[in-house]
Amino acid sequence: MILTKRAGEEHDPAELAAFVDAYTAGQVPDYQMSAWLMAVCWRGMSEAETAALTRAMAESGELLELHDLTDTVDKHSTGGVGDKTTLVLAPLLAAMGGTVAKMSGRGLGHTGGTVDKLESIPGFRTDLSEEAFLDQARKVGVVVTGQSKDLAPADNMLYALRDATGTVESLPLIASSIMSKKLAGGAHSMVLDVKVGSGAFMKTLDDARLLAEAMVSIGRHAGREVRAVISNMSEPLGLAVGNALEVEEAVRCLQGEGPADLRELSLTLASEVLAAAGLPSSREELLDAIGSGRAFEKMEEWVAAQGGDPAALGRLERAPGEWHLRAGRSGVVSGLDALSVGRAAGALGGGRSRKDEAIDMGVGVVLHRKVGQEVEEGEALLTVYHRDGRGLEQAQKLLEQGVGIADSATAPELVRVRGIGR
Amino acid sequence: MILTKRAGEEHDPAELAAFVDAYTAGQVPDYQMSAWLMAVCWRGMSEAETAALTRAMAESGELLELHDLTDTVDKHSTGGVGDKTTLVLAPLLAAMGGTVAKMSGRGLGHTGGTVDKLESIPGFRTDLSEEAFLDQARKVGVVVTGQSKDLAPADNMLYALRDATGTVESLPLIASSIMSKKLAGGAHSMVLDVKVGSGAFMKTLDDARLLAEAMVSIGRHAGREVRAVISNMSEPLGLAVGNALEVEEAVRCLQGEGPADLRELSLTLASEVLAAAGLPSSREELLDAIGSGRAFEKMEEWVAAQGGDPAALGRLERAPGEWHLRAGRSGVVSGLDALSVGRAAGALGGGRSRKDEAIDMGVGVVLHRKVGQEVEEGEALLTVYHRDGRGLEQAQKLLEQGVGIADSATAPELVRVRGIGR
Repeated sequence: MILTKRAGEEHDPAELAAFVDAYTAGQVPDYQMSAWLMAVCWRGMSEAETAALTRAMAESGELLELHDLTDTVDKHSTGGVGDKTTLVLAPLLAAMGGTVAKMSGRGLGHTGGTVDKLESIPGFRTDLSEEAFLDQARKVGVVVTGQSKDLAPADNMLYALRDATGTVESLPLIASSIMSKKLAGGAHSMVLDVKVGSGAFMKTLDDARLLAEAMVSIGRHAGREVRAVISNMSEPLGLAVGNALEVEEAVRCLQGEGPADLRELSLTLASEVLAAAGLPSSREELLDAIGSGRAFEKMEEWVAAQGGDPAALGRLERAPGEWHLRAGRSGVVSGLDALSVGRAAGALGGGRSRKDEAIDMGVGVVLHRKVGQEVEEGEALLTVYHRDGRGLEQAQKLLEQGVGIADSATAPELVRVRGIGR
Repeated sequence: MILTKRAGEEHDPAELAAFVDAYTAGQVPDYQMSAWLMAVCWRGMSEAETAALTRAMAESGELLELHDLTDTVDKHSTGGVGDKTTLVLAPLLAAMGGTVAKMSGRGLGHTGGTVDKLESIPGFRTDLSEEAFLDQARKVGVVVTGQSKDLAPADNMLYALRDATGTVESLPLIASSIMSKKLAGGAHSMVLDVKVGSGAFMKTLDDARLLAEAMVSIGRHAGREVRAVISNMSEPLGLAVGNALEVEEAVRCLQGEGPADLRELSLTLASEVLAAAGLPSSREELLDAIGSGRAFEKMEEWVAAQGGDPAALGRLERAPGEWHLRAGRSGVVSGLDALSVGRAAGALGGGRSRKDEAIDMGVGVVLHRKVGQEVEEGEALLTVYHRDGRGLEQAQKLLEQGVGIADSATAPELVRVRGIGR
């Protein structure tokens, strides 16, 4: 296997699957796998190889079987700051007739996890049994819980090894890692939101497009309907960054309010995945689901089904300490570095750098201006919500460095590419 | 380290040395080293990096200190079939005023080891203590023993890992592996005989030249005088292949007889290394050392010093069974595949495929024709010496496949390139 890949030759898909299986079973040592991984970084992999690797990883553990559910739809983002689109999409897609049955991860590093955000709703349970999970999917049409099953354990093993051997950055390895979880996790139709920009893993549009196409190809090989969108992540999405703050913003979006960029991206992603699933997907139909209140009612129904208090939505606890970053000059906001804002929210206690850290639901950052908007000297650019000053100094430093004001600047294009895989 | 090399950037020599030291000490796991090795296969290494790696490996264990000896000279071959030049050169160089103090390896695979060949001389000891080794070097000027010291253990560790991870074939890694043993082993002046052809590790002249230049560069960085020669190994060197058979051929060469190619290569290598050491090195002076009997007398003195019987030279035991491969047609010998002949000698019991195998000193192959020489139908092309038919069938098959007769063919050029590093 190693010599074949080293020579730049293509693996037989069955042999590649057997190699991954043997590794998962402990029959191939780490030092051989890491040499093979480096050879993949060097030589790349064909679409057929990448599909075979992904499938082998997806099938390495338990599978979440959603075959009994109809019109299963899902969305996956490659990770961004202030990205609460799952909280908008899950009830919206369900209101449109789709079934959203999602096992979601927790946040790590500078981006938050959906499960963490949901836990800011009092009473909300994210530890459903598989039976309860499937039952709720059938009855309510939407359910999101933490990963209780051992989905794609080979991906976990390989990712840890890649992290230790300088072999993380390889397009086919990144694509197969993401897609192995999605194939094991089940939905038939899905839309991938590939983020590009300073706050994203992919820094250039070309790289993002290659990743999107690689993931769509894997989905096609596995018989799934997969579409991809590339969206901007040089500034945070929406205005709120922080667990409870983001839930509140998602609620406002479902009530027809909230920031324009969050609404725009949510409508785009919903339209793509609903069309892929053969469900109603026009902008008018989606706006009607929101305007009529059906989407927000579905959210209330969902929250209640998982033990949360729907009446709490709109008045979740916010950390009491406030600090404002004020504009040092008049002008136009030219930069709001997503990575800096994400790290600031983390420093305040809203994120975790290790898997076992507890997080503070109420802290975070709310932006008052976005890139391309005017500001007067002394006006607040953003508000930080902190608890007893914890991490405030570090957050201030990050935010001061991350914000730029210039004589002129234009708002970045939000949806860079849509319809990949159509 | 891994990410630096993966990106194609150059390591700081001190950092590279520290990395190797940490690996040898068990502080860097195999899976990280193997990923780094694959990155080296991909990106290569600069001369400074290769020199630093070699030095770190050479200094990873004990060193053979020859500083107290004068005019130490050595020869190293990359491995060939029927290559008994060390047996000719060691006494010849000593007769010319050099000091040959060599710890030599045993044979593995299709090429024989010098220590194995010497053990075909009754009584010859190859397990000298370091004290006896240095004492004999001073008194006799020539000593060859097995490796009693743990020379360059990092090379052994790395070679085993490379063998298991598809990272053997890398020019800087091959060069540093060979040279780490030579730097730990001590001689100040050395000539490297890089073999090229079907029976050699390097199959093309270009590859052989690159390897020779890489090794010369390592030697220069370490302050040694290193020259290299590239010689043909598409057919065996000389006529005899097998332990005792080869000692006998070397003895004849030292007596002014024996095959022309063995004499030619021996004179070339001797001349290169003696010139590098600033000792008499002309062809006339070398031929006089042989013609006057001084070189053979030095061999007798050497053999006696290590407990061997000089009177046995010229009448070593030969296996009793004989089989002749006869020409199926008249013509000119067009091929005598070195690899096939080497494997045939091994099949007869003259070599080993595992480190702990015993070998038969008396078996082997003696050629009667070499490439470019005429043969009549039915004449013996070669004689196989076997013991009770052991391995004969396999040897016959290998030899029949390895020999070609055509209407015309020319003898290959023996010394392809000389004077590399002058």
